Amino acid sequence: MNDQNRNSARSGGRAARRAARASALPDHLRPIRPGMSGGALNVLSQQDMERIHNAALDALERIGLADAPQSGIDYLTAAGCTLGEDRRIRFPRALVEDTLARANRSVTLYSRDGKTDLDLSGTRVHYGTAGAAVHMVDVEGREYRDSTVQDLHDAARICEQLDNIHFVQRPMVCRDIPDNRDMDLNTVYACCAGTFKHVGTSFTDPSYVKPAIEMLHLIAGGEDKWRERPFVSNSNCFVVPPMKFATESCLVMEECIKYGMPVLLLSAGMAGATAPSTIAGAIVQAVAECLAGLVYVNAVKPGAPAVFGTWPFGLDLRTGAMTGGSGEQALLTAGCAQMHRFYDLPGGAAAGIADSKLPDMQAGWEQMCSNVMAGLSGLNMVYEAAGMHASLLGFCHESLILSDDLIGQALRCVRGIEVNDETLALDQIAQVCLGGSGHYLGTDATLSRMQLDHVYPTYGDRTSPKEWAEIGKPDLVTKAKARKEQILAERSPARFDPVTDAAIRAQFNIYLRA
Amino acid sequence: MNDQNRNSARSGGRAARRAARASALPDHLRPIRPGMSGGALNVLSQQDMERIHNAALDALERIGLADAPQSGIDYLTAAGCTLGEDRRIRFPRALVEDTLARANRSVTLYSRDGKTDLDLSGTRVHYGTAGAAVHMVDVEGREYRDSTVQDLHDAARICEQLDNIHFVQRPMVCRDIPDNRDMDLNTVYACCAGTFKHVGTSFTDPSYVKPAIEMLHLIAGGEDKWRERPFVSNSNCFVVPPMKFATESCLVMEECIKYGMPVLLLSAGMAGATAPSTIAGAIVQAVAECLAGLVYVNAVKPGAPAVFGTWPFGLDLRTGAMTGGSGEQALLTAGCAQMHRFYDLPGGAAAGIADSKLPDMQAGWEQMCSNVMAGLSGLNMVYEAAGMHASLLGFCHESLILSDDLIGQALRCVRGIEVNDETLALDQIAQVCLGGSGHYLGTDATLSRMQLDHVYPTYGDRTSPKEWAEIGKPDLVTKAKARKEQILAERSPARFDPVTDAAIRAQFNIYLRA
Repeated sequence: MNDQNRNSARSGGRAARRAARASALPDHLRPIRPGMSGGALNVLSQQDMERIHNAALDALERIGLADAPQSGIDYLTAAGCTLGEDRRIRFPRALVEDTLARANRSVTLYSRDGKTDLDLSGTRVHYGTAGAAVHMVDVEGREYRDSTVQDLHDAARICEQLDNIHFVQRPMVCRDIPDNRDMDLNTVYACCAGTFKHVGTSFTDPSYVKPAIEMLHLIAGGEDKWRERPFVSNSNCFVVPPMKFATESCLVMEECIKYGMPVLLLSAGMAGATAPSTIAGAIVQAVAECLAGLVYVNAVKPGAPAVFGTWPFGLDLRTGAMTGGSGEQALLTAGCAQMHRFYDLPGGAAAGIADSKLPDMQAGWEQMCSNVMAGLSGLNMVYEAAGMHASLLGFCHESLILSDDLIGQALRCVRGIEVNDETLALDQIAQVCLGGSGHYLGTDATLSRMQLDHVYPTYGDRTSPKEWAEIGKPDLVTKAKARKEQILAERSPARFDPVTDAAIRAQFNIYLRA
Repeated sequence: MNDQNRNSARSGGRAARRAARASALPDHLRPIRPGMSGGALNVLSQQDMERIHNAALDALERIGLADAPQSGIDYLTAAGCTLGEDRRIRFPRALVEDTLARANRSVTLYSRDGKTDLDLSGTRVHYGTAGAAVHMVDVEGREYRDSTVQDLHDAARICEQLDNIHFVQRPMVCRDIPDNRDMDLNTVYACCAGTFKHVGTSFTDPSYVKPAIEMLHLIAGGEDKWRERPFVSNSNCFVVPPMKFATESCLVMEECIKYGMPVLLLSAGMAGATAPSTIAGAIVQAVAECLAGLVYVNAVKPGAPAVFGTWPFGLDLRTGAMTGGSGEQALLTAGCAQMHRFYDLPGGAAAGIADSKLPDMQAGWEQMCSNVMAGLSGLNMVYEAAGMHASLLGFCHESLILSDDLIGQALRCVRGIEVNDETLALDQIAQVCLGGSGHYLGTDATLSRMQLDHVYPTYGDRTSPKEWAEIGKPDLVTKAKARKEQILAERSPARFDPVTDAAIRAQFNIYLRA
């Protein structure tokens, strides 16, 4: 902040131009927006996608999935699946194809205030947080410590202020809350009290869903209001790859569907451990598992809103440890995004993961690689896009803040190149070259594009070496830290009104101070 | 280095696996290689490209280019161009189309030792350095100082050791050499004495070409050897955008063609200053200018090897300063790469530029964004891909070294996803799930992929937070610095034999110590 002030004092005209730009643009004139359409990147050919689809159908028919709960067996066999003597549920090809034809394609994930609803149709791209980090990254001390409910709430508050973070799936677990039920309920509270944006959570036990829904009814102002615009979705790790249902999680899913909560069908195989080591094979298995999940959801309730969550992760095969910052990970996610388009289903996958422990150069290249490729592939929900370090083990507030620049740049790439008579600029070239000024600087055509076309970084530095020295060689992470402190010094605008808050606190063991 | 040793001492089995992997793979088994084919990213549609092509032809026909030297006027009018009363050379559409049909499509940029020749056909992708930075970045002192011939030579020596840097176009100018002729000749010497890889240089005066060629004849062992495998190309800023020939540089180009040196037809417009501010318009102008250059080259010598160098740069329109780290820049370059494919011409453009002053998180995301998009677009020559900071004003050895990881990851993405019966892994899934071990770790199918499919970072850290703490929380830039010192402690293997070196030193004022 201090550096910025000094800079403004120094350069009058430029500061004025910057200030002019800083005045908020109307949404439709902003150069980047949530939900812009991607799709310029196609890492798979049409034939590749058909082969993956057919392999997935074969896997469902031949191999099927083990470990469904009794209720799931009942739903699925009633829908047309078979239960083998090996207790595996197998999916006839026709049933899967029929489900694909009838599945819900117009899923909207709602925000609490209606300002940032997410339309998951087509190739519309949204970026947000997700994960289950167990550590908070302290950038100053270069330390990893246990993450707390306050850290989670603070992350939600920061996300609320960042234009390019479009949803807030809980990125870390509250390790200061020993009881699992309390933890799940406080997770919902801490996220919703921090942001109006769509929230994602994940319940560890089916019995926790009902009380959480009661809390959400209180927050929404009634069950009808909640059911009309459910602003929290549940991330359901409904499978334990390879090809096994996660029994408890399936029951959680059934509960969520019952109470009108959209579900993310999350298949998180590890390529080389719980999924094949090849990129194509890992995608086949993830697609097969999510198709099984889709049949399950539609067997419970036809048309229930679900996100097709193929989230295969990479492994470092030398060590067997998870790695999320690799080129292989970017390809896994881009390939999955294309399969979502192949099915025309609302889809999500993981990108933006850094293996690096701190917001350093490695983190920058790792986060950009998969984030920009996911966006260019037209992925509807880019989960884990911001703040994730140490291959998902650590979450970092400063890195989250810097991701607003990083994702803004990725979104500019998603927006792409407009080609029309005006942008081709032939008349302008003629005018400038044939007797004109000989340059385009300051022309109306250039000035009108200054805000419309260009994304300017908030934290990224574009000064010359000389200017940079003059303003004291600002450090990127220090700038992010200052912004964090500024955001957290204000009371969260998303906090509940006192009456509602008191009602929640009377019913639940809320850890955050009122 | 120290950290690595400590790590090895700690974990026996893992260290052994790492060591096994570290033993060099035969080239055809390496997961990434120079010249892999890109093309999965298409930021322009076919119709977009046709419109850009037509606008460029219109611009050449209606507007033409000013300021050709007399020799250029003679060559071009003899080929079919017209010289207007306004002294602008205009290009009939049929002439451009005829040139496009006949131009050299099989350009190879040679290495000195034959080991790293660059085949610029199709969508083969190569990454390397380029630029004319005037500063060297001192990462420890966070200082920018004047770049020297020793810095340049050291950059070439570092590039020689980095697998993912495929060519060495001189990235900075030798500011310790006051005389321009000496500077140009020492640039050739310093680069060639540092690397066997293909070298790019840029002559500031036509009269410097002949002596440089004499030096190259000495290095090659004779004119015939030089002409057979010219291992240095010339970067020709043959235009001063918008739509003016750079008179002197055109004469340099004619000299290079005469002596068998391949040329890079470099059009470096600034979108919003010397080119239209729209991405499409900047591409139109760059394409028009390079088409003019292509006609020029082929008028001088039909089939002379030329690289189609559309290098439009971005501007920060708030300040009018150059910016190369933006999403707009990544799109400019990706769009240009597609136009090269449209023409099926060997092409190059700029990517990997950081606006950041230091190798920090911003530099990481900026360098990855444009580098991975350039590769995915199938750009033959990705210039400025490594080490460039402060919007091209500064070059950084440590950043160059880290780029080997960054570009390696981009190359993994360029390689893409193999889809075939083996990689789809259906049989493997069945085997693992139906009575098998239930996981893929350690299976033959997984182990065989460990080296074949996966790119492992050299400097990037993938340890867990616990391991990371145990090995002393290694810093990325410190690791790069250690590697730099290790490389520079060895004598350059690319140095010339003593007899040749003495002959060169007898004829030229060489600044580097023998």
